[in-house]
Formats: sequence, C-alpha cells, structure tokens
Amino acid sequence: MSTSARALASCALTTLKRGAAMCCLCALPALAVDLMPTGDLGLVVERASGSLLQVNTSRHAILRRIEGLGDLSHASLVFSRDERFAFVFGRDGGLTKVDMLTGAIIKRVIQSGNSIGGAISQDGRIVAAANYTPGGVKFFDADSLELLAEVPTDSKVVGLEDSTDNRFAFSLWENARGEGEIWVADLSENPRAPRITKFPNIGKQPYDALISPDGRWYVAGLFGEKGVAVLDMWHPERGVKRALPDYGKTDPKLPVYKMPHLETWAMVGNLAFIPGVGRHEVVIVDVSTWQQVGTIPVAGQPVFVIARPDGRHLWVNFAFPHYDTVQVIDVEARQIIKTLQPGKAVLHMEFTPRGEQVWLSVRDSNRVEIYDTRTQTKRTELPAQAPSGIFFTPRAHRFGL
Amino acid sequence: MSTSARALASCALTTLKRGAAMCCLCALPALAVDLMPTGDLGLVVERASGSLLQVNTSRHAILRRIEGLGDLSHASLVFSRDERFAFVFGRDGGLTKVDMLTGAIIKRVIQSGNSIGGAISQDGRIVAAANYTPGGVKFFDADSLELLAEVPTDSKVVGLEDSTDNRFAFSLWENARGEGEIWVADLSENPRAPRITKFPNIGKQPYDALISPDGRWYVAGLFGEKGVAVLDMWHPERGVKRALPDYGKTDPKLPVYKMPHLETWAMVGNLAFIPGVGRHEVVIVDVSTWQQVGTIPVAGQPVFVIARPDGRHLWVNFAFPHYDTVQVIDVEARQIIKTLQPGKAVLHMEFTPRGEQVWLSVRDSNRVEIYDTRTQTKRTELPAQAPSGIFFTPRAHRFGL
Repeated sequence: MSTSARALASCALTTLKRGAAMCCLCALPALAVDLMPTGDLGLVVERASGSLLQVNTSRHAILRRIEGLGDLSHASLVFSRDERFAFVFGRDGGLTKVDMLTGAIIKRVIQSGNSIGGAISQDGRIVAAANYTPGGVKFFDADSLELLAEVPTDSKVVGLEDSTDNRFAFSLWENARGEGEIWVADLSENPRAPRITKFPNIGKQPYDALISPDGRWYVAGLFGEKGVAVLDMWHPERGVKRALPDYGKTDPKLPVYKMPHLETWAMVGNLAFIPGVGRHEVVIVDVSTWQQVGTIPVAGQPVFVIARPDGRHLWVNFAFPHYDTVQVIDVEARQIIKTLQPGKAVLHMEFTPRGEQVWLSVRDSNRVEIYDTRTQTKRTELPAQAPSGIFFTPRAHRFGL
Repeated sequence: MSTSARALASCALTTLKRGAAMCCLCALPALAVDLMPTGDLGLVVERASGSLLQVNTSRHAILRRIEGLGDLSHASLVFSRDERFAFVFGRDGGLTKVDMLTGAIIKRVIQSGNSIGGAISQDGRIVAAANYTPGGVKFFDADSLELLAEVPTDSKVVGLEDSTDNRFAFSLWENARGEGEIWVADLSENPRAPRITKFPNIGKQPYDALISPDGRWYVAGLFGEKGVAVLDMWHPERGVKRALPDYGKTDPKLPVYKMPHLETWAMVGNLAFIPGVGRHEVVIVDVSTWQQVGTIPVAGQPVFVIARPDGRHLWVNFAFPHYDTVQVIDVEARQIIKTLQPGKAVLHMEFTPRGEQVWLSVRDSNRVEIYDTRTQTKRTELPAQAPSGIFFTPRAHRFGL
C-alpha cells in the first residue's frame, strides 16, 4: 500500500469513529471505506420508506442505508458513466443525485409532479426524466442537475430510453387526437436544443417501451390495442412499423393483473423472450423478422422475463396471485428447469454482470435473496424494508438501463 | 458531502502533499484522489519501458504512470470484478497485481518463464495464466496470488479464455504427436482441483482463440493448416467441430506479416467479422452455421477487427506495411466509410463501453489518440511511451476480456 493510502486509511478510521458512517464500518475493513472501488456495488430501492440500501455483490454485504429520497413507490435509477453517482427518479417527481462513495445525497430537485422514469446519455453528460404530470421530458446536466432543456408533449410520457449518439426515444400515451406517438430527441449537437423527430399515430396508448441491448430497436407496447410499435434507431427515416399483431391484451374478460415491464424483454441472439400480457406464457419473437415464433407456458402472468447474461437461461417472475413464484427456463430446450418459491411479492430480479449470481427482492418478506445461477440455489439473504428495484453499477456501461 | 468524507478529503490533501502520489495530484481534484470511482478508468501498456499509464476516459486524463512491471513486450491484463485491481501478464512470466485506486503494485510473482496471457473466473476469485515456457496453465487466488492449482500440458498453451461456471478453455500448440488440442478446466466445484476435459487432434498448431461475448463459443485458429476448431461450451459433450475450411494461411508464397489476434473477432448478432489471414480482407461468418458468407476488401492485412459496442461499425487496423492506417466499416452496407492515418504502428484500439469514444495506441508516435466514433474525428491525444494494449475497467464485467 502506498504511504498516502496508509495514512489515508488511518486518518479515515479516526475520522469515521467520530463520523457519520458508523453504520457501515462494522461490515467493512478500513480501506474499503476511504478507498472503495465501484464495480461491484448496487442499490436496492426500499419503496415504503423512501430509502436505498447500498450493497456489495462480492461480499454479499449491506454497506449503508441512504434515506430521504421521497416517494419511491415507483422508482428507477441510472448510474453515471464512472459509476460514482446514481440518479434516482421518484414517483413524486423528485430527481436525486446520490454519491455511491460517501452515501451522501449530492442534490435533490422536484422536477415534476409525477415521474415515471429516466435515462442517461451515451456520453454520460445528460440525465433525462420522463413525466406523467404535467407530461414532457426534461434534460439535466449530470454534474449540476441544471435544467438544460425541456420538451413539452401535452401527454403523459412513457418508455424513455437512451440510445447511441446522445439520442433518447420516448412514447406519448395519448395526444389531443387520442393517438399514441413516438418521439426521438437528438442531443448530439447541442444538449440545450434537442432536435425532435415525431412519429405520430403509432397505435393506441403505448404504456412502456424497451430498447435492445445494442441501442438499435425501440419497441413500444400498446395498452389500447394489440401489437407493438417498432422504430429502428439506425434508420428513423424508415418510420415506425407495427409488429406482433396478436400480441397484447386479449379477452377483455381475462383480467390483466399487471402490465409487464417491457424494459426487461430478454434478447438472446435474434430471439426476444417477452411476457405474455394477461396470459400464462412467455412469447418468443424473432427480432430479425419481428414475427412470433413460439410460446413457453409458465406458472402465471409474467412480469419480468430476464435473460442470464450468457443467454442460456431466463428467470421469470409473476403478477398476483403467483407473485411468490420464480421460474427458470432453459432457452435451448424452451422448457422450465426450476420452479422456486422465494416468498410473497417477488418484485424484481437483477443479475451480476457476468451472471453468476441473481438477486431477488421479496417485498413482503422484507428481504433480498441471492441465488447461485449455476445451481439455482439460494446462497444467502439480506434484510431490506419492502424492497423493489435492484440496480447494480455495471448498468452504467449499457444502453437502456 | 458527509462529515467523514469532508474530513477525509482535507486529511487526504495534507497527507498527499507529503505523500507519494504527487505525480497525479496536478491532474486531479482533491476528492478524486481519496474517493475515486473505478468505472471510467483504464490502463495503457507501455511496452518498451515496462510501465502502465493509468487513464480516465471521462476527462481524457492521464492519472499516473505505474512502473516496474518487467517485460511488457507482449502483455495483456484482466480486471477484478470490483474493478479495483488489474492482473498483468508479462512476457517474462510475471504476474503483477496493480491497485487502480493507489497505483501501487500489491504483489508480483514470476510464475513462468514466458507467459502469453491470462483470464479471470466468472466469480472473480481465480486468475489463470497460460504459459509458453514451460507450458501449462496455473490458477491463482485473486486476493493473495497464492497458487491454487497447476495443469501441466507438455506443450505451449495459447488462447486461454474464461467462460461460465468458472470454466476456462485453452489450446495446446502441439502435443507429443504433433497435434493441437483443446482443454477445458472446470473449477466450479474446487479451485484447487480443476476437472480437465481434453479434446485431442483438433487441428495443426492452434495459435490463438476467442470466446464469443456470451461465453458459449470457443474458437481456435490454426497456424499449421486451414480452418478453425469450434467448441460449444454449452455442450462440450458434442466435441470439437472443424469449420471455415477455406479460412487461414493461404499461398505459402504470400507472406503473413502478423497472425491476427482472434480474441477480437467482432460479433454482431449472428455474424462474426474476422481478419483474413495474409489477405487484404475482413471475412464474414454466420456463427449459427459457421459458414463464410462474405468478405469485405480492406487496406491491408487486418490485425484487429473490433465492433463498436452498438455493432453498427467495425474499426480495423493492419499489419506492416499498412500499420499506419485504420479503416471504419459500416456493418449493414459492408463498406468502408472512413480511412484514417493516425501514424506509424497503430497497435491496438479500445472502445469505451457504450462506444462513444475509441482510443488508439500509436506506438511509434508515442501517443494515444482519442476519437469520437459518431464523426470518426480525433478529439484529443495523450503522450505515451511506445503504447500497445489499452484496457478499460468495464472489461471486468464481460467474458473473454
């Protein structure tokens, strides 16, 4: 260890014994407090208490609880490209910048009445927030959270995703004529003056969207009718195409307990594995043709269908009343190889970047469970207050996360 | 900022003014010294001086020079899963553990007479080194660099790659019968007792290999004959198959100035774009069938064909005498869209993880050049002593890097 590092370590301890960070000292060796890398960190949203649990995926440790983030009942977050900061989008319209190294809230702005999510630009300099109330998208400087630009939409905005060249795509739930739209904002030339391209009449009530891992395909799901709307971000001039004419809400008498989160469509090679809406099945789509090529029956209405990073397995959780169940699907065999019962209200699943672990948030059991993905067995669990979303820092290096 | 962090920052400065790390203070604000995230860091190998330049990709800054790594004339490195440590494999058989947060050399062992490269296990606990002299593979504990296990081969070992389930695949240049072999070492159950599966007679003189980004396909190139050897890591029981019967060294009268580095085959969807051996072309392979489906003519004998992370462009550099040239290929059009002349001996190219920048090492100009990939124009350059390999920390989160 260098002289400076050793000195730092000692004065860090002295400081911290008097300092604010006692909560995490117990779990951590001295050096990890003042010299902590950020590649194996994560945040778990505690939805009821408006707090975040900071975790370490190498040591399966809770580092600290970060409080004061407002209403996190429907929260998401993105990480800065250096993994130092998290930008948290709260239900109350709050945008909070959290320091992963100190646990401090650097800045918090209430940027709208009701926010549904956000994204960060390819170069990491621009944070974007999509708003329900009053609608529109706002772009902020990632360093200062200064407002760079605002794009009003006269509609609730959903499915905001980042793509290449500092472009963002998002969907309008319903314009004045009752139609859904997709807009692309290009901030590559001037972040204070986004160039907007509008694609009108893409279908009724887009409710969520995803972008493929390569940043190319922007896909919006429709609540008001069947099918999805697809935009090729390599060729926006080709316009929005409709696809999967049979995909979506089916018999109105069949209840849909929860519309699936499209952001988590699992892409494996040219195949996408997507949650059937209101059906007990995973739908297989060939994205080179955007045709449905099969289905896999599962235990309930899927909410998240997430591919293990190597693409060999899918992990699926479900809407009420099957929200106590998780199933693992073998992609090649297209068959369920394991059914787990972690506990009530499994809300989210997050893989470590090379996929050896998956973390599950079990809301009503107030714990996060950590599984070995090779054996699909539980390694350990951590206490958490009504956990929902789990976000690991390597998301910083990917599109649409 | 928290009390503890503020106190740390101040005592860090006091310390460092007296301390060892003055070299980098000039380039860095105080907090970045004691509280530095690791997501946007990298190392540039300075091959002639046996040193590493630590760089920051957000600020295009050199943080420090790390010296004393021995012979780096053919060096590679891997990062720990938390991004804190780099494990550097040197030509002299040295394995050096470098701390990305302090710049200190934590430990250095001479583990063989001549090393050709290494890998790190999916869970980050095991570092593997492949050796020319005396041959064989050694497995080390990533924390202590304690030797866990040694696998003798009676042959030079090449193409060591990490895959899922703490497995490693590697190739034997030539066994006693003059044949090449592929071996898989499975350390999932016990890192001190690797389970070895051997695939004999896979072709003459495998000289390098790659593993696909999903960790599934292990592909060894052959020096002694045409074709490649392919192992499906999902189904090793199916054995090694030969593919691309026309790929490889052609007319013996046609000189091959440098055998291409296979580790960098560019995979885009189901297509792989690979350097033609001794030919002025990039070869297009459909990996779902392992058939050659086309070629793209280029300026010289390709050494690296690297896909921009979104897969839309390929960047290609070349062997002598065209090693002053870099070409950019549009994947859809299969055409060259830009030809650059950065300077003599462009040895390596590394993209930032979301692909907005690419860094080029220009050995004989003693500089690293940084390009904007959207416009393919130079943003800036940094001085470096005979730079070769460039490695950014997000490699920690991927297979085969």
